[in-house]
Amino acid sequence: MKSKTEYLTFNIPARMDFLNITPDVEQIVRDSGVQEGLCLVNAMHITASVFINDDEPGLHHDYKKWLEDLAPFDASPQRYHHNRTGEDNADAHMKRQIMGREVVVAITAGKLDFGPWEQIFYGEFDGRRAKRVLVKVIGE
Amino acid sequence: MKSKTEYLTFNIPARMDFLNITPDVEQIVRDSGVQEGLCLVNAMHITASVFINDDEPGLHHDYKKWLEDLAPFDASPQRYHHNRTGEDNADAHMKRQIMGREVVVAITAGKLDFGPWEQIFYGEFDGRRAKRVLVKVIGE
Amino acid sequence: MKSKTEYLTFNIPARMDFLNITPDVEQIVRDSGVQEGLCLVNAMHITASVFINDDEPGLHHDYKKWLEDLAPFDASPQRYHHNRTGEDNADAHMKRQIMGREVVVAITAGKLDFGPWEQIFYGEFDGRRAKRVLVKVIGE
Repeated sequence: MKSKTEYLTFNIPARMDFLNITPDVEQIVRDSGVQEGLCLVNAMHITASVFINDDEPGLHHDYKKWLEDLAPFDASPQRYHHNRTGEDNADAHMKRQIMGREVVVAITAGKLDFGPWEQIFYGEFDGRRAKRVLVKVIGE
Repeated sequence: MKSKTEYLTFNIPARMDFLNITPDVEQIVRDSGVQEGLCLVNAMHITASVFINDDEPGLHHDYKKWLEDLAPFDASPQRYHHNRTGEDNADAHMKRQIMGREVVVAITAGKLDFGPWEQIFYGEFDGRRAKRVLVKVIGE
Repeated sequence: MKSKTEYLTFNIPARMDFLNITPDVEQIVRDSGVQEGLCLVNAMHITASVFINDDEPGLHHDYKKWLEDLAPFDASPQRYHHNRTGEDNADAHMKRQIMGREVVVAITAGKLDFGPWEQIFYGEFDGRRAKRVLVKVIGE
């Protein structure tokens, strides 16, 4: 069994935004030499996501509005008890649960085995600081 | 390490519906010969899900109503920017994030290692056309 | 390839609560002897979750309130068709989809490869009875 572990670092200038990280993950899969296996990609921070969806700016606009409706940002300590600890990011912990922490992608014949529109995104919900994503490849 | 990759194709006649695909996945695991390992099952399309829950029609009714409340279908370009691209399925991209893209199931002693009620479903949110699901088995 | 399978049992006294199970999973990874690989941790019951987030009581309070808003408990058969089967836990099947069934964690140099605040939780949405969590380690 082969394995490869890499850490990617992102510093998103907005509180909430989505970044297509597919090329980074593809490069790590190529470097791993794995032909058949699995590739785990996960946010290492708990106010961020890794998810697979479409690289379409209108959809990303819709996701942001929808997530803000489902879990509104509110820095005050009234709405969210978490924000009584000195944090202001309780909403980000919720948004991340809807979008998910991780994806597991099949590697077939040395490549990420994607459907026609699948792209891997880093989803940031409490940005403006450096955060890491883990990529782990195992297989043969 | 052994591996096996299969693609299943489904054409769901409704816009939204759930199909129990457990027997298909069980057959692929048997064919793989893997005794101990992992089985990834993921939607290859970004308006569909693979998830594990109960095969109970009342619950599926409830899921559809609940998802429609959380992310209503609206083909007009007013509500969803994604639907300004000529698409009408922005809601499906949201429903899929709640239900999830994929499941990873343990294989133990040659079988999917399920709890008492676990069944694997294909979740369609923009149906009436053929879409694929990937099944990847790795292990020994 | 090495593998190890363990089943953890939890009996949560409340209907909804979250339990940090990181030490249990860490012990299983140590016992497995795997240095590089993947660790799957999943709820075996369909009204429970395994998820990764912060071990902060204020946040857990917020999660409970938020999930109750998104999918309210209602034992009556009016709101949820699932509860016409004699069950009263349709809401728990929804809460679990938002929080997720499983996590897959990288194992690097013999340890769970966590970000600074990542902790693994068992999420119970229909408690007061024993339920199981599966931990599967594969790697080398």
